[in-house]
Amino acid sequence: MAAVSSSYCCNLGKKFNSNLKKEQRFGDSNTGNLQLKNHPKLFLEGLRTSNIIAKSSIASEVRKINSYESRNLDITHGNLTMGELLNDGLVYQRHFLVKSYESGPDKKMTMFFIINQLHESKLNHLKSCGLVTTGLGTTPEMTKRGLIWVVHKLQVVVDQYPSWNDIVQLQTWSCFYGKNSYRRDWIVRNYKTGQVLIRASCFYVLMNRNTRKLSKFYDEMKEEMNPHFLKSDPIIEEENIISTKLDVDAKGCNCTSLVTRLSDLDMNHHVNNASYINFILEGTPRWMLESHRLSTVTVKYLKECGVDKILQSLSMPIQNDVISNGNYLVKENYIKLHHSIVSEGIELVRATTLWTPYSI
Amino acid sequence: MAAVSSSYCCNLGKKFNSNLKKEQRFGDSNTGNLQLKNHPKLFLEGLRTSNIIAKSSIASEVRKINSYESRNLDITHGNLTMGELLNDGLVYQRHFLVKSYESGPDKKMTMFFIINQLHESKLNHLKSCGLVTTGLGTTPEMTKRGLIWVVHKLQVVVDQYPSWNDIVQLQTWSCFYGKNSYRRDWIVRNYKTGQVLIRASCFYVLMNRNTRKLSKFYDEMKEEMNPHFLKSDPIIEEENIISTKLDVDAKGCNCTSLVTRLSDLDMNHHVNNASYINFILEGTPRWMLESHRLSTVTVKYLKECGVDKILQSLSMPIQNDVISNGNYLVKENYIKLHHSIVSEGIELVRATTLWTPYSI
Repeated sequence: MAAVSSSYCCNLGKKFNSNLKKEQRFGDSNTGNLQLKNHPKLFLEGLRTSNIIAKSSIASEVRKINSYESRNLDITHGNLTMGELLNDGLVYQRHFLVKSYESGPDKKMTMFFIINQLHESKLNHLKSCGLVTTGLGTTPEMTKRGLIWVVHKLQVVVDQYPSWNDIVQLQTWSCFYGKNSYRRDWIVRNYKTGQVLIRASCFYVLMNRNTRKLSKFYDEMKEEMNPHFLKSDPIIEEENIISTKLDVDAKGCNCTSLVTRLSDLDMNHHVNNASYINFILEGTPRWMLESHRLSTVTVKYLKECGVDKILQSLSMPIQNDVISNGNYLVKENYIKLHHSIVSEGIELVRATTLWTPYSI
Repeated sequence: MAAVSSSYCCNLGKKFNSNLKKEQRFGDSNTGNLQLKNHPKLFLEGLRTSNIIAKSSIASEVRKINSYESRNLDITHGNLTMGELLNDGLVYQRHFLVKSYESGPDKKMTMFFIINQLHESKLNHLKSCGLVTTGLGTTPEMTKRGLIWVVHKLQVVVDQYPSWNDIVQLQTWSCFYGKNSYRRDWIVRNYKTGQVLIRASCFYVLMNRNTRKLSKFYDEMKEEMNPHFLKSDPIIEEENIISTKLDVDAKGCNCTSLVTRLSDLDMNHHVNNASYINFILEGTPRWMLESHRLSTVTVKYLKECGVDKILQSLSMPIQNDVISNGNYLVKENYIKLHHSIVSEGIELVRATTLWTPYSI
């Protein structure tokens, strides 16, 4: 089923693009270069415009598909739930409905489920592009060298949280980033209004599957991955995490202990990257969770962790902090926290969060 | 958006039924009585048959809808993700794709996410039927008396777990049950093969919203709910939970301590019913989780619980147990466990699980 959907998605992606007029497309199908001015804001607009134009193509495609009766209805289901490829497969798009169990007590989608949905769309995009050999996102050259991609850093900026029952539209693509890594970007919109709700970027580095040591991004691999990468500016200004480790004994440091559970693990028997967000929230003072909204989170993943580990989730407010980042909601009342998740003295995760009062 | 989808679903449900021949329908649209022989097996077949017939109707409906361009594409998305009503709204049906984060290390959907999906479909069914006043599933008479429905007991029988990327079909409906409660049933199938994967039943009782005391199911409410209830036999033989409390000091009793987290809570600030399944699994010996598959779970909910509570998850094997239930996988090697979740000496949940070896 997965194979059928994937190849179908690829074909559909091409059909979409052939229906779009050249000047209205936001990327060149052969090179992935942006033809519009290479600016995040314009890029966002470009994606939105191409999407509106693509809608009528989707309608006509779905109309055609349904004439093949039930087998093709099956594929339609697959398409609408698995998502579709745009711009010759460089951009993956999916719609989903926010469920009750994905929502917190404020009836807004939780950061945990937002990150899970981002990760899920990445897997679907890679599968749709056929970038699956021994692992997800691996190329033949990577497999030969025993290398895999691991998440180094994740940044999520929430302008507005999707609510329970909202239909949201997610778009994602990848770019080269620096010498030895690549970046994946996401934009999440309210499907009805088109309003941008969430922007996110994730930075991946190469690791040897056996030695767990970081590796160089060899030219052969870059050539293999080039056809799948879009050339675009970042949609979030990258934030660097502080270089010093949090001190549990420092004044103002909040510490919560917890034990990792079976349900925190992913399919690789490691604590799921999204679960660390729950650990970070457990280590955030309760009064802040009640009065403030989590607007931005930047997480740096340092070490993997398994089940039954005793963790300390530390948090500490940063005062007199100057934020020059135009993407942040810079308010007088914002609070910025630094976080650290530690197990047996070893730091697993270091993070920064930005909080804005519910009253704003 | 939700309101549009709901009314649309209702209309679509009626259209489906008007397209089905009378003798092929499994229920009477006016009374909800089964016209086929009132037997679980036949009932299952009936649902399956009506569904196959409905497929071509879905195709033609979707074809019509898409001619209205983007606004209606929006509704199509809503329909395919929100689900649809069958048999004049008595049965709710939805399809979903099993996601990576819903899957455990064995790449099978976890019991936690299965239960969350069941609960989600219940909410969608109630909303589609308009049974939402002050709370979900409440009628005007219930609101007048300050009553709400609470889950008393949940039974889930898994014949085969859905795998990551499977498209599954879920159908659910409600029936009167005894004097003072009602039952909701679910059937989950592999959408491609039609194979029944999961059957589940949940039993609800009335509670006063303020006093938290159980209440009688008054005749006025029964009249209000009658049009929404199907008359059908159970799809699982009901299992009664043992009446004695587990003793933590008894020989063979396994005890795991844990603390409830913010992420365990639902929108009502109580521990989510599905989270207790994770607590039950934490209290199950690890060797069993590695060698056996959870086939059946029956959970009785006794008390609500909030965040930061220290819990003990107890489990104890039951030997020489005779199971006469035809629905169970009765194997020589099966293991049956009794469970109890306790907080400060108060029992919150009592449960039974049945485990079959992975080798079978």
